[in-house]
This record gives sequence, structure tokens and C-alpha cells, in this order.
Amino acid sequence: MYIENINEPKDVKELSMPQLEVLADEMRQALLKRASKHGGHFGPNFGMVEATIALHYVFDSPKDKIVYDVSHQSYPHKMLTGRKDAYLYEEHYDDVSGFTNPKESEHDFFTIGHTSTSVSLACGLAKARDLNGEDGNVIAVIGDGSLSGGEALEGLDVAGEMNSNFIVVVNDNDMSIAENHGGIYKNLKLLRKTDGQAQCNLFKAMNFDYIYVDKGNDVTSLIEAFKQVKDSKKPVVVHIKTLKGKGYEIAEHNKEKWHFCAPFDIETGKPLYTFDGEDYSSVTNVYLLDKMKKDSKVVAITAGTPTIMGFTEDKRKEAGSQFVDVGIAEETAVAMASGIAKNGGKPVFGVYSTFIQRAFDQISQDLCIDKNPATIVTFAGSVYGMNDVTHIGLQDIPMMSNIPNLVYLAPTTKEEYLAMLDWSIEQKDYPVAIKVPGGQVVSDGKIVSKDFSRLNTYEITERGSDVAIIGLGAFYHLGREVATLLKETTGIAATVINPYYITGLDEKTLNDLKKNHFAVITLEDGFLDGGFGQKISGFYGNTDMKVLNYGIKTEFLDRYNLEKVLRDNHLTPKQIVEDIKENLLKKLKKYTKSNQTLKKIK
Amino acid sequence: MYIENINEPKDVKELSMPQLEVLADEMRQALLKRASKHGGHFGPNFGMVEATIALHYVFDSPKDKIVYDVSHQSYPHKMLTGRKDAYLYEEHYDDVSGFTNPKESEHDFFTIGHTSTSVSLACGLAKARDLNGEDGNVIAVIGDGSLSGGEALEGLDVAGEMNSNFIVVVNDNDMSIAENHGGIYKNLKLLRKTDGQAQCNLFKAMNFDYIYVDKGNDVTSLIEAFKQVKDSKKPVVVHIKTLKGKGYEIAEHNKEKWHFCAPFDIETGKPLYTFDGEDYSSVTNVYLLDKMKKDSKVVAITAGTPTIMGFTEDKRKEAGSQFVDVGIAEETAVAMASGIAKNGGKPVFGVYSTFIQRAFDQISQDLCIDKNPATIVTFAGSVYGMNDVTHIGLQDIPMMSNIPNLVYLAPTTKEEYLAMLDWSIEQKDYPVAIKVPGGQVVSDGKIVSKDFSRLNTYEITERGSDVAIIGLGAFYHLGREVATLLKETTGIAATVINPYYITGLDEKTLNDLKKNHFAVITLEDGFLDGGFGQKISGFYGNTDMKVLNYGIKTEFLDRYNLEKVLRDNHLTPKQIVEDIKENLLKKLKKYTKSNQTLKKIK
Repeated sequence: MYIENINEPKDVKELSMPQLEVLADEMRQALLKRASKHGGHFGPNFGMVEATIALHYVFDSPKDKIVYDVSHQSYPHKMLTGRKDAYLYEEHYDDVSGFTNPKESEHDFFTIGHTSTSVSLACGLAKARDLNGEDGNVIAVIGDGSLSGGEALEGLDVAGEMNSNFIVVVNDNDMSIAENHGGIYKNLKLLRKTDGQAQCNLFKAMNFDYIYVDKGNDVTSLIEAFKQVKDSKKPVVVHIKTLKGKGYEIAEHNKEKWHFCAPFDIETGKPLYTFDGEDYSSVTNVYLLDKMKKDSKVVAITAGTPTIMGFTEDKRKEAGSQFVDVGIAEETAVAMASGIAKNGGKPVFGVYSTFIQRAFDQISQDLCIDKNPATIVTFAGSVYGMNDVTHIGLQDIPMMSNIPNLVYLAPTTKEEYLAMLDWSIEQKDYPVAIKVPGGQVVSDGKIVSKDFSRLNTYEITERGSDVAIIGLGAFYHLGREVATLLKETTGIAATVINPYYITGLDEKTLNDLKKNHFAVITLEDGFLDGGFGQKISGFYGNTDMKVLNYGIKTEFLDRYNLEKVLRDNHLTPKQIVEDIKENLLKKLKKYTKSNQTLKKIK
Repeated sequence: MYIENINEPKDVKELSMPQLEVLADEMRQALLKRASKHGGHFGPNFGMVEATIALHYVFDSPKDKIVYDVSHQSYPHKMLTGRKDAYLYEEHYDDVSGFTNPKESEHDFFTIGHTSTSVSLACGLAKARDLNGEDGNVIAVIGDGSLSGGEALEGLDVAGEMNSNFIVVVNDNDMSIAENHGGIYKNLKLLRKTDGQAQCNLFKAMNFDYIYVDKGNDVTSLIEAFKQVKDSKKPVVVHIKTLKGKGYEIAEHNKEKWHFCAPFDIETGKPLYTFDGEDYSSVTNVYLLDKMKKDSKVVAITAGTPTIMGFTEDKRKEAGSQFVDVGIAEETAVAMASGIAKNGGKPVFGVYSTFIQRAFDQISQDLCIDKNPATIVTFAGSVYGMNDVTHIGLQDIPMMSNIPNLVYLAPTTKEEYLAMLDWSIEQKDYPVAIKVPGGQVVSDGKIVSKDFSRLNTYEITERGSDVAIIGLGAFYHLGREVATLLKETTGIAATVINPYYITGLDEKTLNDLKKNHFAVITLEDGFLDGGFGQKISGFYGNTDMKVLNYGIKTEFLDRYNLEKVLRDNHLTPKQIVEDIKENLLKKLKKYTKSNQTLKKIK
């Protein structure tokens, strides 16, 4: 096999055209086997095999610098840059991350997982090259789907003005994760149809030179095109038409489903493990589709990830014009939701926690200043969520809960979530966000009668004394476990509180706690800094109440082991109870209030 | 005068073409007089007089909905929608804000002050209209400068796919605040040059129909064009060529300077009040230009506001290729800075606090995950900064200081600022942001020898006991005033601390304070929630240390009175000392540690 002998890009350059074609087949076979056992991004990588070979054949990485947008199509690149073992040998499958990673290789320049960043990042590489008086090519690879993101369009605008070498490879497979949405895709279609000859050309309108490669999965055509632009002294787009999932027929025919895959049977394409239970995506979908049928003003919005709210293709059809996919454009999703709410509609924007980060200013400026009653639902904002460093969902509490006027809610069960969602859709006073609990769906069948319009009202679910445990969202259940264990080991019957509101304090309840509690424990599923618990600490700063904050330390975790992270952050019931005993009860000699329970313990 | 009789848009419709031209003159005269006495945005409004008249002549606001991007060109709109008095009569000048404001009028749909949002917001209005089964036109007005912002380009992409009425008026005056930057401006130029006939057309490439109006300051031509697109059933761009500052020759010839103006003499254009002292913009500029000359790797980046770092036109020329304006594209500015740093350059991105909000995800994902050593300098992040609700600079601490890996620094003087800036530019280990102090420049001439690489090391500047005052950045000086007054009134010689670091705690210093302090006062120039003080409160949560956090309550303030806001937030030395006496000293009976000073007070 040729692939076994590829240890660096220069090894690619030594192969003949027919050999490169064999290499492509070998790579695809390895990708297929690995995907079937390991899972990962599928379609994007299968479409990019030939282009990656051609890039490394023509250019001289790492002097020539290739930046992959999203980088979920970088597996072939990794195979050709010293990391083939991670794709060839099962015992090495976990040696590499699923994204470009400078810690792995000098051929990777950035850790990338969010879309639409490659052109802007590459602009920086090119600018530094020019300042340094160096030469070499800078190549930004970007998929057609990613072009709908604001940062990508900004980047193209900036790059278009560079009087210098700058190559953009537009990998056009006519798909985002789902189908593309946006006016520019009509132009890409026109360009594909006219073999790149149409006069009206988005890239030329942004001041790029332009080359079209119809056979974007043909190594020879690609090499020819890349040779043509190599060392170009002005910005140029190479628009290549590729086939998502190319080479695995099942994936070619169901591109959306095969964007990403879990382990599967190669023969049938069937996943090895199936999950038929409900999750918060399906729960959301059932609720919303029903709601939409009853109320034509309800509209669900996605920024390129429709299935996070359960909107698979059939459900999208069912929703019709009440479902909007804006492309990978979270900024516009939030602004549009604000506009819909302003004009009497009832918008629900469902989004991964990690991607709502792309819309801080829109939440603040476009939505919250005017208090338009739009709903944002954040998914996978949890230590139990995705664990790639680029996709961790631990920042939404600090990011969103300090924006004025936003009501950010944290349900602890399915029933609370749906009650909040329904309340939010119907009310007209506040911009509301709801943090879907991480982990498995918890359903207790309870009817939720709470009026969420009475902002910042906590609920005491177990009334005790001495210690109060405030468990936010998914961590409420941890709070109950702590209370049980605390009772068992110390006799203290703690008060347990479901705060519901991330964004405001229930000052009355917190003040009442002072009467017969000496400590408050806060638990939150996210970074501690800037979060929920520190607000409670600030509130009690001037009192005798002791406060212990639990959550995740503010750091970028990558491909973490869940158990270890929980342990490192003292997030097991046993650790928390130990902390209470060690840090609070032991110090009670200093504590001036007398208390029967405490005296007993001592 | 006609303008005196315009109380709503329908009054505009009753005038003849010649009368409308007179109306335009009257409006411009009123704008000029008001600007000369009151100041405000100048050029954008002068260019939009005729277009605004034509919009209200042709369309039926508020059923037809006009959304103005940035809305610093909305003065003529306000004049025609019931708010003329605020432009005609000096005693009413302050009746209106400088931006569209739904609280003022049903003709204003959003409070807008950041660029590039109008199209996305209007998409929402249009979507709700369609869901509601209503008709009516939705019109997004956007300047050419704003087109470089990602949200605008996203919005155009989304709008381009709408099968429905959607009108975009592109107000092309061939300027941002300064000159435009980006590849798309070459296309706008081509369109202007060809009277809109060029085949390669950015807007058509985004699936819009397109009309060009060369005489964008001619009421008749504009009315004709708007009539043509009214009730259009698909998205259309009306590209109008206008003259920024039109009608005031001095402004026409110096468009950048006359984007915004302070009160001035109409005859000469000279400002009535001049400021010749140094401010943090000029300080930054002097430093950077000198640094650039010594080091070709240093590059200053702006996102459309070059003068915040003092880069007026002459200074930009002086800096040459070491100065980059990416257009109004903060996301790309941050990503590009990251790329420059990755490739050995030394980038400094200077940006208003309110606009860095547009790059949360880029700071987190594009910069901080990989810890690339770029520098961001945030200006006007202060209660002493801009006071329009859309421009308040009170969110940068909560927004930025909870992002992992970022080192966010708060200098208290010019000398510290420059020392930090120089350190940041030269170091290779961290992404660094520096929060320029609000208010006037404080310069004490001290040589700063601190090694900022020793992260999170506070400096005790006055060593006392009992009470420690930690004054962050600009509020350090307030901390010293508090200490002085506290000594005078209670005899307590407080410890005063300059923490330097917003993003990390000096745990050793904080622990040491426990020995002979019973209280810590934190002071920060920004929203309290998610900020600096709450981290200190969280740190001490489990101890006997009392903590009082001072800063600004988390709410959207608009055109606030500085003194009142300071007072409302207990931010005068007198109030803070009163709080210490009332909330801390009075409770000391409960406090178990004995202390000589305290005993004396009691």
C-alpha cells in the first residue's frame, strides 16, 4: 500500500498520477473502516480525499500553509502529514483529534471546530508572512456550507483586498450538514451549471480571481488547477465541485445522515448501536410540531443544525414555513428571532451551547436592549455534552447570564423544560433563554404549575436547616444526592433548592436562609467564573453565611474523561459531603450561632 | 416652512416635488444648526435627507417598516415621524436619542447603534409578516460601510432566499467612518461606474433583484426607484449613490472628520471647544508608531474605527502596511490577529469595549484555545465612557474575563498601560487584552518594572490592616480616595491593592489578607455580575472575610447622568465609607477576632 509509506507531504509528491489515484482509494478504504468502528465526521472527509492529495502534491506544507474550515474534513490531511497510523491501525485510532490540532503536527496551524473561520485566520498568516518579508502560499479551505457564516464573508471581503498571495479553495458539495440555505447558493449553483463561466460571480464581486474545477474528485484536474494558482500574487478562489460521502454509496445517497456517523456495519450502513429512547431533541420536536399546528405564529429557527431540535428532513417538511434554517449564521438567527418577536411572531431559536457563543452581541444589542420576547434554547451546555475542546458547552452560563434583560432559565426535568418553553413562547415581556439539562432526560411526570413570570423565585423542594443546597438545572439532581448523603453521614437535613433562574437572585429566599442555615452550597453545570454560584457568593459577602461554589474550573478541556473531570472538580456527592465536613463543620468552633444538629455532630 | 407642518409621514405625501426639494433644504438647515450647537452624527444624516423624504413619500410607515442600520443616519427619519421639534427648537434638542428608538415612536422598530444588523432584524419583521398572513413592505437601509460586517452579509444571504417582499436600500456614500476596506468595495465602485449595469454584481450574486440610482440625493429619482420596488414580491436591492455630508461644503470635503461632530462654528467649521491634552488614543498612537518603526512585525488592527488608536489619515500613511483596517468586521479582526501572532507577527487590535462584544466566539475559539500571543486593547470600557444604551462600555469585564487562557489586564495609569502593552507585544505565551482606563489620563511618571509574565500577582500599594480595598483599573484611584476618607473618619488604615489582573486571582495575597483584615472591598468599572468582585467573593465564600463588591448594577443604562449613576451604585468615597461603617463596623460585635483599631472605634 502507498499510504503505509506516506510519512510526510513530500512522499506524496513522489507518486505518479495513477499511483495517486490508488492512494486515494486506499485512503478512502481506511477512512471507511475507521468510521465503521470509531465513528466521526464522514461525508466531509470522503469528499476531500483527492483535493487533499492534490494540495499536498502541489504545495509545500508547512511552508505553504493550509487552513481547513471547521476542519471536520481534515482526516485526509492528517493521513498525509505523519499521522496515517491513526487511520490505519485500530489501536491508534484515538491518537488524533477529529479536528486540526497544532499540538499534533506542524502542518496544523489552528485548533478549529467552529465554522467560517478559516479565511480570517489565514488572512492573519498571510499578513504576517508579508510583514516578515517571506514568501510561500497561504491556502484557506472552506466548504460551501460555511460560506453562510458572517465571519467567513467578512474574511473573504478582507482577503479580496490583499495585494498578495492568498488562495481560497471552496469545497462545494452543495450541502451544509443539511441542505444549504441562502441567496449565495443560487450563485454557486449557477457557477456549477456554467462550468464557472457565469459573469455574475460572488467571488469576483469580492475582488478574487476565480478558477472552477468541475471534477473536484479527480486528482489530475485538481493538481492542474492548484499548479495554476500556486505563487499567485493576488487573491484567488479555486471553486471545486466535490461529492459529499464520495466512494460509499450509502453515504452519497443520504448526505445529511452521513455528515457524521457512529460505528456502523459497512455492508448495510446500519448503526451498530441504536438509541430509541427520548432525548431533549425529540422532546423539543414533538412539542414544537404540535404547538406549530395550533399556532401559525410559532416558528422554529436553526443556524444550520436542524436536528438539535429534532427537525430531520421529514419534520422540516411537516413544519413548512414555520421552520427556518438561516444557514450557519447564529448572529442573524438571533437578530431575526428578535425581529419576528417584535412583529408579533413567536420564534424559538434552538442552538448548541458552543455555537450560541457566536451571538453575544446580537443577544445583547439586537434582542435584549428592546426586550423582544424571543426564545433561545441552548442544547448540550453541559459537562455531559460534547467533549472536544472546540465544542465544550461550559461557557453559556457566564456568557449569557450577565447580559441585562435576558431571563435565562434552567429546568431540571423534561416537565419543567416544556413548561418553561410554553411559558416563554406565550409571554410578551422578556427575551428568554432556556438551558436544556445535560445528560439523559429526567422525567418525573409532575405537572408544573409555576408562573415563570414571577421572575427570580426559587423553589425550596426540601426544607431543612443548617446547610442549603442550590442545584441549578441538571445539577439539581446532584444536589439531592448530596443532601441524602449528608443526612446519612452527618444527620444534617439540608434544605434543597431548585432555583430555576440563572439570571436573577431570589433575595427573599436567600435572606430567609440566614435564619437557620450557616452554609449554602451552589452547584452549576458550567464554568464557575462569572457564573451562578459567584453571584450567590457576592450576595452573601457581607454576612456570616458560608458559601461553597461547585461547577467546572474555567479551562479548555479537550476530549476529557467525564468521571475524571467530575472528580477533579469535586463534583461527586461523596466529595461534596467531605468538603462540607472538612471545610465547614470543622470550623464551627468559630461559628457563633448555636445549633442543635451541629452540636450533636461535634 | 414645510418642515414645521410635518407631523407624520402622510404630511410628506401631500407635498409636490418642488415642495419636497424645499423641505430637504429646510431639513438640512435645521440639521446644520442643531449639529453646530448640539453635536452628533453629521455626515450620515446629511447624505440621507432626500432618501428619507422619498421613503416616507412612497411607503406607508409604520405599516411599511423601515429599519436603519446603525441608525446614526435616522435624524431625517425622526424629523418626518413626529419628532421635528427636537431638530427645530434648541430647547427640545435633547428630547430624542441619536439612534432609532421604539420608545420614541411607532415608526422606530429597534434600538440600534451597532452596525450591520438592519438586514437581519428586518428579515425577522418580514418573516413574522408572512407568518401572520399580512402584507406591507419591509425595508432595510444599510450604508456601504456596514456591508463589511459579518451579520450584514449573513443577513443579505438569508434575505436573498426569501420568496417575499424585502427591500434593501444600500446607501452608498463610498465611505465608512474612514475610507472603506474590503474586496466588495471594488464591486460597488464598478457598479457606480457602470450606472449599475456591470454583470458582476454582489447583490445579484446573493439572489437579489437590483436597481441603481445614481442621483441618490435627488428626491424625484429616488421616488421613482422606490415606487418601482414597492410591493415587490421578491428581494430587491436599491443601490443609491449619496454624498456624505451633502450640503455643507466643509463636511463634503472632509468626510472622515465630519462623520460625527462636536459643537462648531458654522462659518468656519471650527469646533467650539478644543482638547489639546493627551488621551489614551493619542498615547497609544505615539507608542505604536514608535514601536512600528523599530519593529516591522508590529501591526495595528482596527475594525473601522482607526482613530480610537489615534490613527488619523496621516498616521495611517505613516504606519503603511503595519496598519490594517478590516472594515467593520470585529470577528475577522480577532481571527486575523490570532493568525498574525501564530505566524510570528505582533498584532495589536484596538477596539471600543462595546464593539468587542461582537467577537466573543473569536476570542474564545480562534484566539484563546491555541493561546496565540495577540494583543487586544479595549477602549471606553467604563462608566466614564459613551452613555448611549447601544454604546455603553460596561460589559467587557463579564464578557472577556471568563474566557479561558485570556490574560485580561487593567492598568491604572498611562505608565502601567504602556508597560503592559509593551510586555504583551513582546511575549509569546498568552493572548492578552488590556482594558484602557476610563476617564482622563492619569500619569504619575513612575517607571513600571513589574514582570507581567508572573500572572495574577497583585500589588499592595498601601499596607494597612482591617479593611483591604482592591481597586481595579480606573477604579483604583477611587479605592485610594476611599482609603483616605476611611482613615479620616474611622482611624482605620486600610490596605490598598492594585490587582492588575482581571482574569486571575492572586490567591497568596488574598489568603495573607486573612491574617489581619476582616473585610475586602472590591471596586470595578463595569457590570458587577460575572465580574471581578464576585470572583473575590467566591474565593472567600468559605472564610470569615467579609466582602463588599462595588461596580455597576447589570442593567441597560441610556444617556445617563454620570453623577447619578455613580451615586445610585454607591460609588462615591463617602457612600462607600458609610457602607463600611454601617454594614461592617456595626456588625463587629459578631466578629470574633479582636483588633485594636476596631476596639477604639467602638
